[in-house]
Amino acid sequence: MANIAHTVHVGLGDRAYDILIGDRLLDDAGALLAERFPGRRYGIITDDNVAKAQLPRLLASLDAAGLQHSEIVLPAGESTKSWDLLGQAVEGILAARLERGDLIIALGGGVIGDLAGFASAIARRGMGFVQMPTSLLAQVDSSVGGKTGINSPHGKNLIGAFHQPKLVLADLSTLDTLSPRQFASGYAEVVKYGLIDDEAFFFWLEENQAEIFAGGPARGEAIARCCAHKARVVLEDETELGVRALLNLGHTFGHALEKDTGYSDRLLHGEGVAVGMVLAHGFSARQGLAPSQDTGRIVAHLKKAGLPTTLAEVPGTLGSTEALMAAIAQDKKVSRGALTFILTRGIGRAFIEKNVDPKAVSSFLDDMRG
Amino acid sequence: MANIAHTVHVGLGDRAYDILIGDRLLDDAGALLAERFPGRRYGIITDDNVAKAQLPRLLASLDAAGLQHSEIVLPAGESTKSWDLLGQAVEGILAARLERGDLIIALGGGVIGDLAGFASAIARRGMGFVQMPTSLLAQVDSSVGGKTGINSPHGKNLIGAFHQPKLVLADLSTLDTLSPRQFASGYAEVVKYGLIDDEAFFFWLEENQAEIFAGGPARGEAIARCCAHKARVVLEDETELGVRALLNLGHTFGHALEKDTGYSDRLLHGEGVAVGMVLAHGFSARQGLAPSQDTGRIVAHLKKAGLPTTLAEVPGTLGSTEALMAAIAQDKKVSRGALTFILTRGIGRAFIEKNVDPKAVSSFLDDMRG
Ligand SMILES: NC(=O)c1ccc[n+]([C@@H]2O[C@H](COP(=O)([O-])OP(=O)(O)OC[C@H]3O[C@@H](n4cnc5c(N)ncnc54)[C@H](O)[C@@H]3O)[C@@H](O)[C@H]2O)c1
Ligand SMILES: NC(=O)c1ccc[n+]([C@@H]2O[C@H](COP(=O)([O-])OP(=O)(O)OC[C@H]3O[C@@H](n4cnc5c(N)ncnc54)[C@H](O)[C@@H]3O)[C@@H](O)[C@H]2O)c1
Ligand SMILES: [Zn+2]
Ligand SMILES: [Zn+2]
Repeated sequence: MANIAHTVHVGLGDRAYDILIGDRLLDDAGALLAERFPGRRYGIITDDNVAKAQLPRLLASLDAAGLQHSEIVLPAGESTKSWDLLGQAVEGILAARLERGDLIIALGGGVIGDLAGFASAIARRGMGFVQMPTSLLAQVDSSVGGKTGINSPHGKNLIGAFHQPKLVLADLSTLDTLSPRQFASGYAEVVKYGLIDDEAFFFWLEENQAEIFAGGPARGEAIARCCAHKARVVLEDETELGVRALLNLGHTFGHALEKDTGYSDRLLHGEGVAVGMVLAHGFSARQGLAPSQDTGRIVAHLKKAGLPTTLAEVPGTLGSTEALMAAIAQDKKVSRGALTFILTRGIGRAFIEKNVDPKAVSSFLDDMRG
Repeated sequence: MANIAHTVHVGLGDRAYDILIGDRLLDDAGALLAERFPGRRYGIITDDNVAKAQLPRLLASLDAAGLQHSEIVLPAGESTKSWDLLGQAVEGILAARLERGDLIIALGGGVIGDLAGFASAIARRGMGFVQMPTSLLAQVDSSVGGKTGINSPHGKNLIGAFHQPKLVLADLSTLDTLSPRQFASGYAEVVKYGLIDDEAFFFWLEENQAEIFAGGPARGEAIARCCAHKARVVLEDETELGVRALLNLGHTFGHALEKDTGYSDRLLHGEGVAVGMVLAHGFSARQGLAPSQDTGRIVAHLKKAGLPTTLAEVPGTLGSTEALMAAIAQDKKVSRGALTFILTRGIGRAFIEKNVDPKAVSSFLDDMRG
């Protein structure tokens, strides 16, 4: 297939799969699937935005390959990751009489990937599924690694399954219909990989940021490097008993902010992560763990991407520090009451700290709200 | 522990576990758990009948061992295996702030085991759980093997996960508060193991039936032999891609009857299975596959147990043959339109037949409704 620019293999034994990255891959999807998974029928799950922007291309390509399919279109947005819509997705799969050997396609951003992946994990006690991520966030992060799930009133992503896809097909051209704000939000996760343990990648991002935003070849390369990074972490720790938690850099703060803003358009996931990464670096610097110039460099880079970097930039009135701390304590990265945070010794040097003093965090937050 | 009469090991590698069978094991539960799983907290899921009959014993035993616990009591009955009550169970686990290392206890019959097992599979993307089966059906069948799930309007058990328990604790004395009708219903699954591939076990049941119903040592032995049988099948085929389907002997017909009677008290699961096993043998005999005397022997044995063996004995007005056939076609043991049935060449000689002619089944049913 001429359109495949990068292939990343996730070598998880009998659950191994490929991530294919390239331009206009959606137009090849039918042929690619027919070749890799002969004799299946397909259930496509997507949201109404993506249904308008990208679904016709996928349908045309499946039809051209003679593949049978049915579609379930859900409302767009984080609140779709709910019991209600999970039920709709699963019952829709059953109503379409898809069988255990058939495949579900998750066509959309992280919301659809998480929900459709989880629906495939539990429909008929487990069906295969293919990720076709259409947001930058989904292409660099959520479509890889098999974490699937929905949100609970008790917190984000608290319900779900580890269920690896059979294939990830990231079509770069789908990003053309994504809003610039959503693109920037996904870019926060790209930066995250550099900050965790790859300073060289962060340098490279500093040099190639403009091309990545403009859509040159650096964009595909950035996505492939992120996928390779994530694949490596997932191989080491598929079910997040250890190092995989590093991928949560910036997320404990970020989730608290998302919760505070009602998981709404006020603050996108990646925007929360951007502020959260700056806070994690700032807090680490305050503890004398990391050089404070690093925080400055990160802030400068995220600002260029159009991302928020301070609590003051979160639109609307922020909840009290107590409310934020309660959200932090309820986040799943809590074990036996002690706060677990991803802290850092500098760019590319993040680590898991299981004994963070809640008082230090809350007084830091007090100062940061200015 | 003096009370453990039988131990069956399920050697599933890193998911291996023990089934402990014995009298008054619930009173030892706290000590057993404290020894095997130090430092955990417990979330007990049960139904209102079992909460009255058996929960106080478990709580006393956990308290005596100093183990922290919380309880979720759900309504009794098959309709509890629903999205709604699954949501309640999972949100209850999260509300109790149980963490990924803590353990869920399923105290009850197959309904609670299936539901609580599934809730543990998806709460925090997978928590450990312990089966404490209190019905005969659960002790010989549903608590072993890791099939968990709920029902869909599209059919029984169509939503769920394969999630093995960490321990199964079958207390024989809990069966003392089970109704005789429920005991008989569970006995149908006991007979099933003999019919599948163990004629010697069926002989033994013919000889020991009275003692099993009266509660002598043969009861514990029967349960242990069933668990060992099921464990062997699960080892061979954990996710039911092959031989595990044999455990569905009588279930395709049985599920159709359960559906037709609204999953109600009109027909218990095991009662449907009893009629279903007779139908499966009768149909096999009609096809010239099995000797028809075998059907007679099975009918005689099930009758002695107080179980129904004919369609006429299903209380109320049965749906049309067309309606039953539609239910059969919708059962999950359908692949690409062809009917898959567990047929037999005689007692102890069941096999999977993937190409059963729907017309032969429907004309057989027509004759059987007399
Ligand atoms: N499973 C994981 O490992 C993992 C990792 C990170 C994030 N996540 C989850 O991912 C979610 C966020 O993902 P997201 O940012 O992609 O959100 P999203 O799926 O809501 O997509 C963002 C918006 O962009 C729209 N959209 C997506 N692709 C489009 C396209 N090509 N053209 C036009 N519109 C398009 C969507 O309809 C939506 O309105 C969160 O729920 C988060 O928890 C999961
Ligand atoms: N997971 C599997 O592999 C598997 C296998 C077979 C059956 N099943 C499922 O199991 C379910 C049937 O199980 P069941 O027959 O145990 O039904 P059940 O759980 O509804 O129990 C039957 C009744 O007995 C009551 N009860 C249970 N134990 C009691 C006790 N010790 N004292 C007093 N009352 C008690 C219950 O409250 C209920 O009213 C079905 O949903 C079926 O699909 C699952
Ligand atoms: Zn994220
Ligand atoms: Zn059964």
